[in-house]
Amino acid sequence: MSAPRPEQLSLNTATVRQQWKLDAIIDGCARHGIRGISPWRDQVAELGLAEAARRIRANDLTVTGYCRGGMFPAADAAGRQAALDDNRRAVDEALALGAKCLVLVVGGLPAGSRDIAGARAQVRDGIGTLLQYSREVGMPLAIEPLHPMYAADRACVNTMAHANDLCDELGDDGLGIALDVYHVWWDPQLPAQIERAGRRRLLAFHICDWLAPTTDLLLDRGMMGDGVIDIRALRHAVEAQGYDGFHEVEIFSANNWWKRPGDEVLATCQERHLAHC
Amino acid sequence: MSAPRPEQLSLNTATVRQQWKLDAIIDGCARHGIRGISPWRDQVAELGLAEAARRIRANDLTVTGYCRGGMFPAADAAGRQAALDDNRRAVDEALALGAKCLVLVVGGLPAGSRDIAGARAQVRDGIGTLLQYSREVGMPLAIEPLHPMYAADRACVNTMAHANDLCDELGDDGLGIALDVYHVWWDPQLPAQIERAGRRRLLAFHICDWLAPTTDLLLDRGMMGDGVIDIRALRHAVEAQGYDGFHEVEIFSANNWWKRPGDEVLATCQERHLAHC
Repeated sequence: MSAPRPEQLSLNTATVRQQWKLDAIIDGCARHGIRGISPWRDQVAELGLAEAARRIRANDLTVTGYCRGGMFPAADAAGRQAALDDNRRAVDEALALGAKCLVLVVGGLPAGSRDIAGARAQVRDGIGTLLQYSREVGMPLAIEPLHPMYAADRACVNTMAHANDLCDELGDDGLGIALDVYHVWWDPQLPAQIERAGRRRLLAFHICDWLAPTTDLLLDRGMMGDGVIDIRALRHAVEAQGYDGFHEVEIFSANNWWKRPGDEVLATCQERHLAHC
Repeated sequence: MSAPRPEQLSLNTATVRQQWKLDAIIDGCARHGIRGISPWRDQVAELGLAEAARRIRANDLTVTGYCRGGMFPAADAAGRQAALDDNRRAVDEALALGAKCLVLVVGGLPAGSRDIAGARAQVRDGIGTLLQYSREVGMPLAIEPLHPMYAADRACVNTMAHANDLCDELGDDGLGIALDVYHVWWDPQLPAQIERAGRRRLLAFHICDWLAPTTDLLLDRGMMGDGVIDIRALRHAVEAQGYDGFHEVEIFSANNWWKRPGDEVLATCQERHLAHC
């Protein structure tokens, strides 16, 4: 199986968020020849939206996604409306940055709730309402299925099948999927659901690795090659559907990669991207 | 929705394994009027198989399952054969204890492997081979789908759909499923897959709760009622298929329940069983 092209690597800014602020991350991408970036809203807000957009444009970086919208379920109507208002602002920011898509981490159970079917209905309705705006302004929404261990508190869409179902129900126009290998590698239905998604729905491809053992539910992601995911096979699976976009590395790693110099992390991402993705 | 019957509670011995050895756990069940027990192999070995069987019979406890067989995948043929030999011994022990079933935690990826499809094929073949023996001696095998966060290192069967597929392929005779709410509560296909399993395949029903947040991948399970799982709805779903067996509480909790007096834990299990299951 062939290696990826170096210029397909994109950096999700969470990967070096403990080392650098957004301006330094943009400079780091430029210095290392990384051509794509996917910034988080809090980092953009800190630098300022206009300044972030200016620096990203000045370095000719492709914004492969904007992190993140979503978090739709809430305990009451006011909470749901607040989430929708915030998601509209996220769409506007994604437009200002020229992002390829707004990534949706859809949210989990409202506080005190045990009704996961209800939360999933709220997610469907929330995306449906947001689409009325995002379609109008032309910003694609990318549903990111999160690993089932996040079903309670981060995202109750946990499989490609569920994301595909939502696309079926809400319509493909301006809606698709962000596939992160970390979240879906374990799923026996994955090959069939990648095929079902097809080129049209595959809006982003995120890479990192699942460590065995994993010591923290959130902050112990592995660098590509250090874990058990056959990332190359998954890249070939999305390429078989026609996906030829970026490979966005996103690593939350409190005790390893977040403690290393940013330049070392970026160089390692580049090396491992070519060797393992 | 109606409450369960008190006599449906079974105690998986892992729930108080830090407080008591098996003989004390059996005494605790008798003292609290708990009618079912599900012991682990290491605890049985420590007490002695014959003595464990004698004490369980003397207290008229139903052995709702024996923990555990499985761990089929291995890096080489010798490893796979060793696993099969050990599984045959587990079947023999389950017979000696009069267990309702041998619970299978099927195993994850062999060391160094990224081939999850291959591991799943090894699991299928391993169960198929073990069935030749377990059917002959009359010990049902219960495949326990484990949460996807254990796919790498404990069990690469992670959904009820996959367990049902294995039953389809290998035949229902002497083969079924142990449904643990902790592992499968998040799955949007769960209601349909419980229906697909039906009464025949539902060999065990395990209870505890998913805490939000969960602080450890293995040892932070919650007591029924302390988390987000709608356990009662799931009990009614299995009862709708005709399941009328035990509800086996199994809680690994390094920082909470394992630190409390065993009698307090058992009394709490009984109270929460009636209130939340």
